[in-house]
Amino acid sequence: MNKTLVLIQCRDDLGLVALISKVLVNHRLNITAMREFVDELADQFFARVECDGAFFNENDLYSELRAALPEYSEVIINPKTEKRIVILVTKEYHCLGDALIRHYFNTLNASVCCVIGNYDTLKELTRKYEVPFHHVSHENKTKLVFENEISAVIDQYEPDYIVLAKFMRILSPEFVAQYEGKLINIHHSFLPAFIGASPYRKAFERGVKLIGATAHYVTNDLDEGPIIVQQTIPVNHTFSVFDMVTSGKEIEKSVLNKAMQLVFQDRVFRSGNKTIIFE
Amino acid sequence: MNKTLVLIQCRDDLGLVALISKVLVNHRLNITAMREFVDELADQFFARVECDGAFFNENDLYSELRAALPEYSEVIINPKTEKRIVILVTKEYHCLGDALIRHYFNTLNASVCCVIGNYDTLKELTRKYEVPFHHVSHENKTKLVFENEISAVIDQYEPDYIVLAKFMRILSPEFVAQYEGKLINIHHSFLPAFIGASPYRKAFERGVKLIGATAHYVTNDLDEGPIIVQQTIPVNHTFSVFDMVTSGKEIEKSVLNKAMQLVFQDRVFRSGNKTIIFE
Amino acid sequence: MNKTLVLIQCRDDLGLVALISKVLVNHRLNITAMREFVDELADQFFARVECDGAFFNENDLYSELRAALPEYSEVIINPKTEKRIVILVTKEYHCLGDALIRHYFNTLNASVCCVIGNYDTLKELTRKYEVPFHHVSHENKTKLVFENEISAVIDQYEPDYIVLAKFMRILSPEFVAQYEGKLINIHHSFLPAFIGASPYRKAFERGVKLIGATAHYVTNDLDEGPIIVQQTIPVNHTFSVFDMVTSGKEIEKSVLNKAMQLVFQDRVFRSGNKTIIFE
Amino acid sequence: MNKTLVLIQCRDDLGLVALISKVLVNHRLNITAMREFVDELADQFFARVECDGAFFNENDLYSELRAALPEYSEVIINPKTEKRIVILVTKEYHCLGDALIRHYFNTLNASVCCVIGNYDTLKELTRKYEVPFHHVSHENKTKLVFENEISAVIDQYEPDYIVLAKFMRILSPEFVAQYEGKLINIHHSFLPAFIGASPYRKAFERGVKLIGATAHYVTNDLDEGPIIVQQTIPVNHTFSVFDMVTSGKEIEKSVLNKAMQLVFQDRVFRSGNKTIIFE
Repeated sequence: MNKTLVLIQCRDDLGLVALISKVLVNHRLNITAMREFVDELADQFFARVECDGAFFNENDLYSELRAALPEYSEVIINPKTEKRIVILVTKEYHCLGDALIRHYFNTLNASVCCVIGNYDTLKELTRKYEVPFHHVSHENKTKLVFENEISAVIDQYEPDYIVLAKFMRILSPEFVAQYEGKLINIHHSFLPAFIGASPYRKAFERGVKLIGATAHYVTNDLDEGPIIVQQTIPVNHTFSVFDMVTSGKEIEKSVLNKAMQLVFQDRVFRSGNKTIIFE
Repeated sequence: MNKTLVLIQCRDDLGLVALISKVLVNHRLNITAMREFVDELADQFFARVECDGAFFNENDLYSELRAALPEYSEVIINPKTEKRIVILVTKEYHCLGDALIRHYFNTLNASVCCVIGNYDTLKELTRKYEVPFHHVSHENKTKLVFENEISAVIDQYEPDYIVLAKFMRILSPEFVAQYEGKLINIHHSFLPAFIGASPYRKAFERGVKLIGATAHYVTNDLDEGPIIVQQTIPVNHTFSVFDMVTSGKEIEKSVLNKAMQLVFQDRVFRSGNKTIIFE
Repeated sequence: MNKTLVLIQCRDDLGLVALISKVLVNHRLNITAMREFVDELADQFFARVECDGAFFNENDLYSELRAALPEYSEVIINPKTEKRIVILVTKEYHCLGDALIRHYFNTLNASVCCVIGNYDTLKELTRKYEVPFHHVSHENKTKLVFENEISAVIDQYEPDYIVLAKFMRILSPEFVAQYEGKLINIHHSFLPAFIGASPYRKAFERGVKLIGATAHYVTNDLDEGPIIVQQTIPVNHTFSVFDMVTSGKEIEKSVLNKAMQLVFQDRVFRSGNKTIIFE
Repeated sequence: MNKTLVLIQCRDDLGLVALISKVLVNHRLNITAMREFVDELADQFFARVECDGAFFNENDLYSELRAALPEYSEVIINPKTEKRIVILVTKEYHCLGDALIRHYFNTLNASVCCVIGNYDTLKELTRKYEVPFHHVSHENKTKLVFENEISAVIDQYEPDYIVLAKFMRILSPEFVAQYEGKLINIHHSFLPAFIGASPYRKAFERGVKLIGATAHYVTNDLDEGPIIVQQTIPVNHTFSVFDMVTSGKEIEKSVLNKAMQLVFQDRVFRSGNKTIIFE
């Protein structure tokens, strides 16, 4: 049987579940899994509804849901199942390699349109998977020129998301604004600890007993965007900075992959600087 | 505002969420959190619905829900918030002590009516918290006589649940049947590994790299009942059996507490030999 | 057979393991477990050596080890196995209750000499275990007077360690200096994230996906002392600040207990602002 | 400065650490990290000693260590740092892909000599990394013929280890005996739970709340060999068998990689059916 996925975000109000489920029933859609959440501080309602059934008039369903819901609601019916993504990298291979293999075997829930590197270190790896690699160096350029060149490459692919897979350049607010809501970053610490550069060195110097990684949407403020996934792993006094970097890569890879899966399966909603995740 | 909690289990059918939410709206109950699940193999629907609002006629609500739902449905409206429990112990203090302190500070979501021990080792600890302790020795008795004595004590307290907090006697099918669905046990392994006696010794001998604990409902088959909570922790070659027992106690305590919280907050449904848990 | 424990800290040098093991052999001590670590940045050597055998002249062993090791070395032979501790609390029961039960059943590796509270909330709980409770209010007093009163109580018990088990007052550098190396605190965040007050509120506002707890030695800088144990647990968007506080208590209790066990078993060495832990 | 690694296994005896460290000092080797363990039940001593310094006569060092240690001791000085491995696969790509990328970037501590598949599904993936792929089908052959064909391929590469990276055929005792101590397998459950085929289906049917993976040496008994690494991850009632398989792959990949790193860095000793691991 066909499946229908409905995503809803709107101002909270009485009886929303009843209103939504009534409209769905009228279109012969049977709810098989429904997740909803009310962010009381933000007065926002979020729902992700999986249904059995394929209606014949998506426009009608959309209109009826919008009519039933409060003003300014957002309704998405059957979002694209395979997202298009562009991956930005510098020199580290672990996150990119993992994504490329999943792309190759169709388990990423996304298609990697291209990889952009400010070094060409990962060109050969990328090309093994028949994915275009664009080398856009940042050297001897203003940040503006560099970012414009990157944008020019990104835009020709019209991606749904841009994934910063250990891209070690700080992006300008203007660049970020251009791709609002589409930028996903992996940061190599359990934010908000160790914001900014060299988190493993800082972790080593502080003598922490765990290190972590954080996948988040990118906003203007460095490492301050809505967090999607975080994990930590134990370390001890025998770990050098190098050992922390090595161990940390395993968790960076795992956390970024988890975040991508959640986002690409349309399980992540944003509410201000937080995420609501219907796993 | 008052809160209403509705628990539903029934045969699966089309449009159940719409039917349920419509009835709730008619009683001016606004759904603030709804969790539902369909066990497709068992063809069963489960829902836990939290609402804002206090209806005036619970009987009407119950009748309308029953009428809207398939035959043989179970509907519970506002289950008792503080369960009554009896705890059975042998000699180990860690699970009991943790429960008694929570009981004392009203954070157990349950009231400990009494403790029954087949040894009197934990009598003093129990009495510190003004909870009755009954010493029912198993020695020089048939199992039938022993269990009848325990039942006699249990029954005078009319508990909602009986918690086996490291009670080291195997209970007869007859005893278990008497308290069907009310018996919660903590087993000191990650079931189904190391069923039965001396799981830490078996774990030591097998050279596993993690040990665990499992909280489960008790059914006729030893250690085979529906699992509620499981956790594991790492061990290594330096752990003796004694070290495993010591470390294991921390996780037994944690797992049993977690399971009790879930059950006492009416977040656990049973479907055959499995649990559905709405955290 | 008797066991001997030797703790050594000194400047690093060539052949220290050989020197130490030779001295031990000369005293007919057989090494059963040896852990050592060189902090290269600090140029310090640390060792914890467990031996079978009971020598007849501890003074000789001590002198020979000191003679064999570089200048300014620290050697401790057979440290006290049951430490004396004083616990400082405010109103939260979970860490204290856990410690008291372990004290009562002799599994804390320490004896709780007394509990000091700036409120009397936990007096009854403490007294259940026949441990003295001293109520030293901070109200209507300067910090100096308050701390002097606490010191007066502490000092009459001559404790080896003072454990801040959710003691919610900031201590002055003078007070801390007085008990240098003896103060253990549990902080309710994964430091260095959320230093200072209300870490769970800050965690909620930041939208993190995990919360944590950190046990550390107290030094002059707030929440900046050497970390002993840290753990995190996952949270999600459904967690209110209250839910985080509730879940966090489980991990605070667990982390503080783990840290106490390590310290009281003489497994923790300090090297500057870090700890070396021989588990 | 040059580094020297010494591995020792022998019958336990008095003063072994002193004897060993004395010999090392005589060769101007300074111990920078020493890990040792006595398996009291097996009466065996194990040590892994890292030294600064490069002696000039390895034969002398070897002879002196053997002379100082009890009879039948095993001493290895500076084992090969890059092991040669052969990987056996069936159809699943996740473990192989991960290993190939690490091989390509020289972070596996081993070189993948070739991959052998009983299907050719992973041929293209393997060849991307310029690693030979041998398709040895099991169809229409006796197990003996099949295994002989595999052995013929393996033997031409003279590997140090053979890694079963989701190789879904059961190997005969004869085949296993041939590669005694060299076979590493990843099993998709937390052994000893769910030995044998279809562990995720069994896990689903049992309703467990966690799934796991186990890397172990292969011995004659199916899934009974010495365990190297185990990990678990939580699952819940919403997981289908397919979901468990999907989630499980992440942990299989992680556990197998961890085990390979430990073995290839000579951190794993075997004592009967257990492993001693000096991390």
